[in-house]
Amino acid sequence: MAAGNNQGGSALVVGAGPGLGFALARRFAAGGMSVAMVSRNKERLDQLQAQGGPRLRAYAADATDTAAVHRLFETVSAELGDPSLVVYNASAMLRGSILELDVGSVERAWRVACLGGLLVGQQAAKRMVGKGSGTILFTGATGSLRGGANFAGFAIGKFGLRALAQSMARELQPRGVHVAHVIVDGVIAAERNRDWRAQHGENAALHPDAIAEAYWQLHLQHPSAWTHELDLRPSAEKF
Amino acid sequence: MAAGNNQGGSALVVGAGPGLGFALARRFAAGGMSVAMVSRNKERLDQLQAQGGPRLRAYAADATDTAAVHRLFETVSAELGDPSLVVYNASAMLRGSILELDVGSVERAWRVACLGGLLVGQQAAKRMVGKGSGTILFTGATGSLRGGANFAGFAIGKFGLRALAQSMARELQPRGVHVAHVIVDGVIAAERNRDWRAQHGENAALHPDAIAEAYWQLHLQHPSAWTHELDLRPSAEKF
Amino acid sequence: MAAGNNQGGSALVVGAGPGLGFALARRFAAGGMSVAMVSRNKERLDQLQAQGGPRLRAYAADATDTAAVHRLFETVSAELGDPSLVVYNASAMLRGSILELDVGSVERAWRVACLGGLLVGQQAAKRMVGKGSGTILFTGATGSLRGGANFAGFAIGKFGLRALAQSMARELQPRGVHVAHVIVDGVIAAERNRDWRAQHGENAALHPDAIAEAYWQLHLQHPSAWTHELDLRPSAEKF
Amino acid sequence: MAAGNNQGGSALVVGAGPGLGFALARRFAAGGMSVAMVSRNKERLDQLQAQGGPRLRAYAADATDTAAVHRLFETVSAELGDPSLVVYNASAMLRGSILELDVGSVERAWRVACLGGLLVGQQAAKRMVGKGSGTILFTGATGSLRGGANFAGFAIGKFGLRALAQSMARELQPRGVHVAHVIVDGVIAAERNRDWRAQHGENAALHPDAIAEAYWQLHLQHPSAWTHELDLRPSAEKF
Repeated sequence: MAAGNNQGGSALVVGAGPGLGFALARRFAAGGMSVAMVSRNKERLDQLQAQGGPRLRAYAADATDTAAVHRLFETVSAELGDPSLVVYNASAMLRGSILELDVGSVERAWRVACLGGLLVGQQAAKRMVGKGSGTILFTGATGSLRGGANFAGFAIGKFGLRALAQSMARELQPRGVHVAHVIVDGVIAAERNRDWRAQHGENAALHPDAIAEAYWQLHLQHPSAWTHELDLRPSAEKF
Repeated sequence: MAAGNNQGGSALVVGAGPGLGFALARRFAAGGMSVAMVSRNKERLDQLQAQGGPRLRAYAADATDTAAVHRLFETVSAELGDPSLVVYNASAMLRGSILELDVGSVERAWRVACLGGLLVGQQAAKRMVGKGSGTILFTGATGSLRGGANFAGFAIGKFGLRALAQSMARELQPRGVHVAHVIVDGVIAAERNRDWRAQHGENAALHPDAIAEAYWQLHLQHPSAWTHELDLRPSAEKF
Repeated sequence: MAAGNNQGGSALVVGAGPGLGFALARRFAAGGMSVAMVSRNKERLDQLQAQGGPRLRAYAADATDTAAVHRLFETVSAELGDPSLVVYNASAMLRGSILELDVGSVERAWRVACLGGLLVGQQAAKRMVGKGSGTILFTGATGSLRGGANFAGFAIGKFGLRALAQSMARELQPRGVHVAHVIVDGVIAAERNRDWRAQHGENAALHPDAIAEAYWQLHLQHPSAWTHELDLRPSAEKF
Repeated sequence: MAAGNNQGGSALVVGAGPGLGFALARRFAAGGMSVAMVSRNKERLDQLQAQGGPRLRAYAADATDTAAVHRLFETVSAELGDPSLVVYNASAMLRGSILELDVGSVERAWRVACLGGLLVGQQAAKRMVGKGSGTILFTGATGSLRGGANFAGFAIGKFGLRALAQSMARELQPRGVHVAHVIVDGVIAAERNRDWRAQHGENAALHPDAIAEAYWQLHLQHPSAWTHELDLRPSAEKF
């Protein structure tokens, strides 16, 4: 049984906020990888890099801008080597009645949730297919499977990202590139929901580190037994 | 048992080509409705109107243009009355490897497949919610459920349209508006595939009139037993 | 476009209680068919026959008994002709915690919900395949798609029946036999829930006649556009 | 972040053949657990125990026999301690046209595929709920999601097992017991398909050890981020 995709190398995490994105970056670094954290928010990124240790590096970029994503991959490849693990973790919440949804907002949310995934996934795939290996992971949500009332603006992008992930898996897996879609079903523990968690119990919200472990295990999977889709939810979550 | 949404009134079919769109318009007219056929192609529309009888009227409009859709509904409402049956049947095929997909093409395909559905659905919903009745139907495809290799550019839009349909159903059905999504799984019989059908048999392709009948029956459903999603495929189709 | 399966002939409804089963039988009779109503409860059947008019005939049989189903089809074929429309509408509710479920009860519920469907479907298929036409319909429920807490004993049978319906459709449709699965998602209006409906509104529960209409329309579908699965729910139902 | 279910203890694997079952047992043993391997085939079990090292112990039992499963859990609990990880990995392939399926065979296949899972899951749950922890894993297949032509006899059981897994997860997870369903989509590498694999490549079939690793990682998941369902397939597999 040949080794999986787990030996050092570099990773790229697009959508690197203080929650899941940062946890992913730290987990990959703990696994021996150099990690590029990507976000539009340069200031926040610099804080994360300051907290995150020498293997983490911050790159400010807009994942919905074709040229910017192109430059990002060129820079990261030059500085850290071609990434063998790429995560698209960006998203934009949008709520609102179908009667009042602003079409421009829907389009912007879709560009962040889905089009950015295409841009990033495409650049990742181009580099990985030549090597015949690599892992591309997409972050999904309950709204990837279910268009809830007042959530059309969110679900349109999340359904679309799932379509992209499936299509990429079916094209790229026979060429050695693992593509998976992770459905995060529940609230992610964060500073802002500390009170809610105190009330509902320690495992009412997903711990970012626990989610990150699942992503890491996907990267370690042997090519004879790849997961394309899995869900993650707190033990207490209804589904 | 109160009567369903079946008494005359007007219908609006967006995406009115010579195949399914025209068959829908004729079926609704046969059911007693005045029907607005909408497409960007004015010339083709005029031909259809010429063939289609007095209850069909052609309206040229770009369903991905917010202002145009707004005007369309105002015009149709003024000329035929507020539509009680609206179908979004527009779509744009896009094939291509993830490695070569042009992002602009993906965005254009998405605007036709999904964003236009939102614009049209929103205008329809605003008129129907006040009346507490009406039917909004969306045309889906195999690519609404499955992101196939080389079909990301198509599936992103079709998954998104399904998200929209679900979200609208969950919001609007309790307010009296029926929203359904029809998965057309197979080739629709057309002039261009006449030879292929001659080879594969009469029922290898979906007859537009048979599809149209299913849409019409959805409109006739009683509010105590509404279908949100159904599939349609030829008897010979593998699935 | 050749005619659908709609010209007279005989139908067979297994699971003919006073609610949906009886409504199906009446709808098929109104469409011109002779209808065999089947249930284990001879007394109730006789009441239905008395109410139901000359085209309805009652047959007492246990659908989970291989020999009884065999005899049933032989008798009905002899008396009414081979049925061209067969509905399996029997089911058995079973609730209970996994910690307390009695295995014998689970097995009995499964035999009614699923094994009877196999026995009936098999006899129907044998007759229809030779003719190259016919319709076999299965009644599903929310529990066909979702194993809820305390509903394992119900969902095991309903999931199994859906597996059967899919497998039969994939085998038999290319041979001319239409197989569909109807997901009835909600409470069916009945004498016993009259008070609940008075409180929740006329369309909070599915009207048996409205459901029956959907089954009938499935039977009328043209072979170039067959539905395999559809859902039916009240406009007010959450899903 | 509290520790997961990963500290020693005992595991029980029902359906312990030389392929996946044995690989699961070895993986759990490598993780520090004492492992009870269960099968009806005493002779084969003894061979596995001889190969498997001191942490593996063989128990002959029929998983479809209520009393036998009861005794099995009592014996294993007495000898190895209450299991904190239980896998139901038994199944029975059954192919055949709906026109020819023998009902007795379908029922036997269902008892192995599904009813045994209920018996084993119930005994496991009774022990785990009191402790507020534990992991119960079910082995699914492509046939858990899709009833293929000529596979009704297999899919009825596999759909049913999935219903069971969902129902147990929804009831037991809020009580601390993790329940997951693993869809193994493809051929598992074995002695008997050695030639086929030589032709199709090393990763055309799932390696039992790679599958076992995924099960083990499910057991290690933190309760704030539990997976209920994942798929596993070879990189080369079409889906």
